[in-house]
Amino acid sequence: MLSMPANASVTKSSRTERIRHPEVGTLDLATIMRALGDPLRIELVRLVDQEGEILCTELYERVGLPNSTGSYHLRQLREAGVTRARANGTKRMISLRREDLESRFPGFLGLVLSS
Amino acid sequence: MLSMPANASVTKSSRTERIRHPEVGTLDLATIMRALGDPLRIELVRLVDQEGEILCTELYERVGLPNSTGSYHLRQLREAGVTRARANGTKRMISLRREDLESRFPGFLGLVLSS
Repeated sequence: MLSMPANASVTKSSRTERIRHPEVGTLDLATIMRALGDPLRIELVRLVDQEGEILCTELYERVGLPNSTGSYHLRQLREAGVTRARANGTKRMISLRREDLESRFPGFLGLVLSS
Repeated sequence: MLSMPANASVTKSSRTERIRHPEVGTLDLATIMRALGDPLRIELVRLVDQEGEILCTELYERVGLPNSTGSYHLRQLREAGVTRARANGTKRMISLRREDLESRFPGFLGLVLSS
């Protein structure tokens, strides 16, 4: 069944392991800046920074976003390598990829958070 | 003539004075990161940095862009406050708003240029 969607037969527990994060070596500053080039996403990053780790739905609530929109914005941040998502049942715990960002772009995250 | 387009009767010499640049106090990091969230625009910024000031058309040539596309990308950078355009006849000399960026977001430009 070549046309089967990639995650069609993925069970709940294995699906949670499939959350994709770019390797630290592939992090790209243009991609990261594109992801952060939105006041709302900077706000999300600030909140995650303050909390350390936070449930995605709590994060959406804090900024007054519906889950679908919040999920879209978090995906931009995760795919750019800014945030990490960890499965927590059917939801996700979100944190910043602080060390990874610092190792590739020293000072950058601090600058964004302090601006 | 209230409906006359804003620049309809602008002569060449006064038109050159109308190139708009955001005030340093209004520079916004999200807007700047959106403008820089493109490898091509980062490359343009690097070239302008190396040259100090460069003719827009020479810049387009250096990255192999048609004038129309190059002009689009430079407008993104200028409107975000990253670059300054100075009229030079019918063309423009482009430079970086180094001091303005440094005063608002210390270290940011250097970080982008060195990445």
